[in-house]
Amino acid sequence: MKIGIVGLGLIGGSLGLALRSHGHTVLGVSRQPHTCQRAIARGAVDDASTTLSLLNAVDVIFLCTPLAAMQATVVELVPHLAAETILTDVGSVKGWVVETIAPLWANFVGGHPMAGTAESGIEAAQQDLFVNAAYVLTPTETTPTQAIQVIEALVRPLQTRLYHCHPDDHDRAVAWISHLPVMTSASLIAACLGETDPAVLELAHALASSGFRDTSRVGGGNPELGVMMARYNQAALVGSLHAYRDTLNQLITQIEQADWRSLEALLKQTQQSRSEFL
Amino acid sequence: MKIGIVGLGLIGGSLGLALRSHGHTVLGVSRQPHTCQRAIARGAVDDASTTLSLLNAVDVIFLCTPLAAMQATVVELVPHLAAETILTDVGSVKGWVVETIAPLWANFVGGHPMAGTAESGIEAAQQDLFVNAAYVLTPTETTPTQAIQVIEALVRPLQTRLYHCHPDDHDRAVAWISHLPVMTSASLIAACLGETDPAVLELAHALASSGFRDTSRVGGGNPELGVMMARYNQAALVGSLHAYRDTLNQLITQIEQADWRSLEALLKQTQQSRSEFL
Repeated sequence: MKIGIVGLGLIGGSLGLALRSHGHTVLGVSRQPHTCQRAIARGAVDDASTTLSLLNAVDVIFLCTPLAAMQATVVELVPHLAAETILTDVGSVKGWVVETIAPLWANFVGGHPMAGTAESGIEAAQQDLFVNAAYVLTPTETTPTQAIQVIEALVRPLQTRLYHCHPDDHDRAVAWISHLPVMTSASLIAACLGETDPAVLELAHALASSGFRDTSRVGGGNPELGVMMARYNQAALVGSLHAYRDTLNQLITQIEQADWRSLEALLKQTQQSRSEFL
Repeated sequence: MKIGIVGLGLIGGSLGLALRSHGHTVLGVSRQPHTCQRAIARGAVDDASTTLSLLNAVDVIFLCTPLAAMQATVVELVPHLAAETILTDVGSVKGWVVETIAPLWANFVGGHPMAGTAESGIEAAQQDLFVNAAYVLTPTETTPTQAIQVIEALVRPLQTRLYHCHPDDHDRAVAWISHLPVMTSASLIAACLGETDPAVLELAHALASSGFRDTSRVGGGNPELGVMMARYNQAALVGSLHAYRDTLNQLITQIEQADWRSLEALLKQTQQSRSEFL
C-alpha cells in the first residue's frame, strides 16, 4: 500500500520504519528540509518533501503533527487528495481531533498509538516502538467501515493491541492514566520547591531516591506536551483533577484526625487495585 | 567489634550480612525462632536468640524493629546493657524516635539508612543493600561524641553516603521526598477508582502504561508502612500535604481558566528543578 506521513518526529518516523518493514511504500512530509533528509537516510520513508502535494496519490495518510498544527495541515492537504484517500491521526486527545477533522474529511478515522520514549524527533524513531503498545481507534457513527478496516489492517501487523472506543471515552480514560498523573507529579515537584528552609531543601535533594524519582518522573517531562494535554483535553482533565482533590482532602483529613484505621483501609485498597491497571 | 541487632527483617538482616563481611561479630534477636534460624542459615548473624539477654556484652546495638515496637524493646533491653553500650536505630522517622529513646538510654544516636526493596523479611536481606545509599545520623546536643564516631566508623565502610542533621530537619526532608509521594500516589489510584462509567474504567485499565506505573508505584506499596509514616511523622507530613494542596489548587485554576502561559511556566520550572533532586 502507498502511505503518506505528515510530521516526521518520533511517532511519524517510527510508523514509517515499521510500515516500510512490512512492505509498504511510505512518503513523508516535514516542514524542515533537514528532517526530510534524515528520514530518508534513516530509512523511515521512501521519499520525503516539504510540500503536501507529494501525497496526492497515496491510499492512507497518517497525521503525525502536534495537535496544534493538525487542523491547518488538513485544510492545506484536502485540495491534494482523491476522495478515496483515508486519513487517520496519532493525536493523544481524540474528542477535539475528531470534532475538528471529521467535518473537513469524511474518510477520517481518529487514532492514538500509545507509545513513546523520553526522546523526541526523527533521530529517536524506532521500528519496534509500537510492539505491545495499545493502539486506540475512535470511529464514530459516520466513520466509513472500510476506512476503519484499512487502518486496522495496517497497524495490527505492527503487533499493537487494538482498541475501539468513543472519542470521549478515550479522553476520559487517558485523563485518568496519563494526563492526571502529569499534573499530580508536577504538583509534587513544585510543592517541594516551596520549602523555605534551605537546609531542609538541600537535605531533601540529597535524600531523594527511587520513590521520589518515579513519582516525579512525568511531572518533570516536556512542558509543551503537558500544556497540550490540558488545552485539548481540558474538560476530562478538570473532572479528574476535581476527583483527585476530593480524594486528597479525604486522606489529609484522615491524617490530621489521626484516623489510622481509615487511612490503612484506603492504602489497602490502593495496594490491591493498582495491579488492575498494570 | 561485637554488634547486636534487634529485629532481623530486611534492614536488620542486611546490616548483619554487611557488618559480618567487614569482620564484625553479629548477634541477632528476633521474636520468631524461625527467623533466628534463617538469619543464622543465611549468614546474617553469628548467633541469634528470641531473648534480649543475648546482647548483654555487645559494644553496639542496632534497633531494627518497626517504629511501633521500638520503645517497648528499649525498655526491655536496658536492664541487660552495660553503660558503655551504644544504641542506634534505623527508623524512617527521627524526631519521635529521638524524643522517645534518648531519655531511656543516654548513649543513643538516631540513624536512618535510606535503603529498601519491594520485598521485606530476612529472606530479602542483601549484603550490598547500603552501597551508595544515604545514611542519616541525627545526633542532638546531648548525644555523646564518641557514640557518633563509633557508629560512623561502622557504617562508612558499607559505602554509605553519611549525612548529619537535626531530627526535625530529617523528618521534614523525608516528608517531602518519601512520605508525601506515597500519599499523592495513593490518592491518584484512589481517585481513578472513583470513575463511575465501567467502560471508561476498563479502558483506563487497558491503556495504563509506564507513566501511570511509575506515578502510582509508591501509592500501591505496603499499607502498614504508609500508616507508620503518617503516624510518626504526622506534623511534617501534614505541612507538606497542605503545601501540595495549595500547589494543586493553583494548577487546577490555571487549567480551568485556560491560563496556558502560567501552566507552561510552572511545568518548565518542574522540568528544570527535578534534576536537582536526582
